[in-house]
Amino acid sequence: MRSIVTLLTDFGTADGYVAEMKGVLVSTARDLELVDVSHDIPPHDVESARLAVARYWRRFPERTVHLVVVDPGVGSARAALAVESEGRFLVGPDNGVLSPALLIRGARAVSLPVPGDASPTFHGRDVFAPAAAALARGTPLDSLGQPAETPVMRRTPEAVRDPGGWVRGEVIVVDRFGNAVTNILGVRDGEVRIGVTTVPVKRVYADVAAGEAVALVGSSGLLEIAVRDGSAARTLGLVRGTQVRARGA
Amino acid sequence: MRSIVTLLTDFGTADGYVAEMKGVLVSTARDLELVDVSHDIPPHDVESARLAVARYWRRFPERTVHLVVVDPGVGSARAALAVESEGRFLVGPDNGVLSPALLIRGARAVSLPVPGDASPTFHGRDVFAPAAAALARGTPLDSLGQPAETPVMRRTPEAVRDPGGWVRGEVIVVDRFGNAVTNILGVRDGEVRIGVTTVPVKRVYADVAAGEAVALVGSSGLLEIAVRDGSAARTLGLVRGTQVRARGA
Amino acid sequence: MRSIVTLLTDFGTADGYVAEMKGVLVSTARDLELVDVSHDIPPHDVESARLAVARYWRRFPERTVHLVVVDPGVGSARAALAVESEGRFLVGPDNGVLSPALLIRGARAVSLPVPGDASPTFHGRDVFAPAAAALARGTPLDSLGQPAETPVMRRTPEAVRDPGGWVRGEVIVVDRFGNAVTNILGVRDGEVRIGVTTVPVKRVYADVAAGEAVALVGSSGLLEIAVRDGSAARTLGLVRGTQVRARGA
Repeated sequence: MRSIVTLLTDFGTADGYVAEMKGVLVSTARDLELVDVSHDIPPHDVESARLAVARYWRRFPERTVHLVVVDPGVGSARAALAVESEGRFLVGPDNGVLSPALLIRGARAVSLPVPGDASPTFHGRDVFAPAAAALARGTPLDSLGQPAETPVMRRTPEAVRDPGGWVRGEVIVVDRFGNAVTNILGVRDGEVRIGVTTVPVKRVYADVAAGEAVALVGSSGLLEIAVRDGSAARTLGLVRGTQVRARGA
Repeated sequence: MRSIVTLLTDFGTADGYVAEMKGVLVSTARDLELVDVSHDIPPHDVESARLAVARYWRRFPERTVHLVVVDPGVGSARAALAVESEGRFLVGPDNGVLSPALLIRGARAVSLPVPGDASPTFHGRDVFAPAAAALARGTPLDSLGQPAETPVMRRTPEAVRDPGGWVRGEVIVVDRFGNAVTNILGVRDGEVRIGVTTVPVKRVYADVAAGEAVALVGSSGLLEIAVRDGSAARTLGLVRGTQVRARGA
Repeated sequence: MRSIVTLLTDFGTADGYVAEMKGVLVSTARDLELVDVSHDIPPHDVESARLAVARYWRRFPERTVHLVVVDPGVGSARAALAVESEGRFLVGPDNGVLSPALLIRGARAVSLPVPGDASPTFHGRDVFAPAAAALARGTPLDSLGQPAETPVMRRTPEAVRDPGGWVRGEVIVVDRFGNAVTNILGVRDGEVRIGVTTVPVKRVYADVAAGEAVALVGSSGLLEIAVRDGSAARTLGLVRGTQVRARGA
C-alpha cells in the first residue's frame, strides 16, 4: 500500500518552492502519494493553518504523514517537530501549527536535528520534507530525533457562559464564502448578537431568504454566521476576533 | 488499475474543507488516485463550473469519477446526484452543474440519500465524497439511490442566425487570459462585431500584432475574442452575457 | 514503478484547461502520477516560469517528465520541444522556458510535429500533453521528432564586480512573501545598497527585528532581500529589474 503525504504551506505555488519539496519527497520515497491540502494559507498565518489542520488531520487514514510548513520563524531557535498522534504523523515547525494533534492524549513529538548544510530560509525542503519521507517509508518516529518535551501549544479560545444566560465567544476564522466560524459550541437555536445586530439560529442556509443573515451549526460543530448567497464577513463586518454572543438551546 | 477521482469545487483550499473531502475519499477507497481539477471556481458560480465540466469530463478514461461540488443550495430540498454517462461517473448537486454529462443519450442518474448525521452545510464531505468513493470501488450506480427522473438541466444559450446573415450570440465565459469565449460555432473567417467595434476572425493569435484584438476558433470549437498579449475582457469590456455578432464562413 | 509527470502552466485552474490536459495524460498513459507544480504563473510570464523550472526540475528523480506550458506564442511559428537532460525529460514551447535544462552539457532537444487537427490555441492539450505521456510510457526522445538545433535560450543576467569592489546586480524575481531574489552569488556578509538604502547581510531573518530589512543567502544560493515578518518588495519598492549592489565576503 502506498504511503500518503499531505502538504500544507503558505508558499503559493508560482515560485517553485513547493515543487522543490515535492521533488525531495518523491526522490526519497519513490512510492508515495502526494496530496495537496493548500499552498494558499495567508503568508505567515499560523493560526489559519492550525485551524485547517484541525479540520483534516484525522480524516486521513492511519500512517498518513501530514507535512505542514507555515514557518515565519524559520532559521531562528524554534524547534522542528515530528509528531505521532492517533496513528497519523505530522511534521512541521514548533510554533503551534501542529497543536490539534499534539493536544490528543498519547501524542508524542521529537525534535528534528537541522543538518549543517540546510538552508536557513527553507527548512521545508531541507528538514521537514526529508523527515516526512522517512516517516512515509516506515522509519520509526523515535529514530528521527530526541523527545520534544514542551512543544508550543495554541488553542482556540473558549467561549464562556455569562450569568445572563448568553454564551460569549468570538469569530475564529472567516472562510472563502465569507462565513464567520465562531468558537461557540452547542447552540442549535435561538439567536446570535453581534453588537446591536440580531441573527436567528437556524438549521440550514435555505431557512432564510437570499441576502439575509443566519447562524447555524457548521460542519465542524461550531456555530457560524452566514449570509445566504452572500458574505457575512462583508455584510456584517466580521473578522477574526469579532465578539459575538448567542442564546438558545 | 487504480481508480481516478477528480475534484472540482468552489471552496478554495485554505480552509481545509477540500482536504476533509480528500481524507474521506482515501479513507473509504484506499487505492484511488485524486486529481485536482480546481477549487477556484468563483463562490456559488454554478455556470462556470458547468462550463469547466463540459471541457474535461470526457477527456478522462472510462470509470473515472468526477466529483463536482459547487452547491449554493446545500441543505435545501435540492437533490444530490450520481450520474453514469459514456462510461464515466459524476457526483454532485442537482443544480445543473452535471448537465454536460446528463444531456448525453443513455445517461442515467440516481438521487443520493442524505444520512441523518450529514452536516446540512457540507454534503461534499458527508454525501458526495462517500458516493464518489463507492463508485471508485466499483459499487454499481443503481445501488446508490433511486432513479432521478427530472434532474435540473442547464444549457448554453444557442446563437441564432438573423435574416441579415449575422450570427448573434453572446460571451459565455471569460478565461484567465481575458479571452472571451462565445456560444458561436462554425464561423472561421470574416468579422465579429461588439457594439460598434469590429474584430477580424483569424486562425491564431499571432495573425495580429501585439495589443490588437482578434477572434478565432478556440480549443473547444467555439469562437472566442482575444487581444494578443493582452486581455480582451479588459480592453473591450467583455463580460459573461455581452452580445456579439459574427459574419463569415 | 509509476512514471511522474509534473505540470506547470499559467492557465489557472477554473476554466478546465488544465483538467483537459490531465485527462489526455491519464488516458494515454494510464499508470502515471500527476504532480501539480503550479498553474498560477502570471499569464504569459515566461521568465517567472523559467526561474521556477530552474528550482525544481532536478529535484525530481530520473525519468520524471516535466510538462511546462507558458506559451504566449502558441499557434505561431515557434517550435514545440521535448528535451532530455540529466535523465529527466521536459516538454514545452521553444521560448526559453526550458533553458535551465537545455543549458546543461549533454542536453538533447527534438522539435515536436504539430498534428493537423491540433487546436492552434491549445498545444498544451494537443501537442505537449501527448508528448509527455509518450515519454512517460518510455518512448525514446528521438522518436518524437527531429533534433532541434538552436533552441531559444534565456539566461539570468550575470551580476558584475565593479572596480570599487561592489557587486552590481538586480532583482530577478519577487516571491509570494515579498522577498526579492537577486542574481548576486557569493556574498555572505557586508551590506546591500538599493539606491540610498543600506541593508545588512545576515544569515537568517531572525537576525534582525520584526519590520526591519535584511539581506541573506536564499535557498538557491542567491542573495535575497527580505523584511522580517513583512514584505521587502512593498517596503523597499522592489520589482524585477531593480538595481542593487552588494559588498562583503
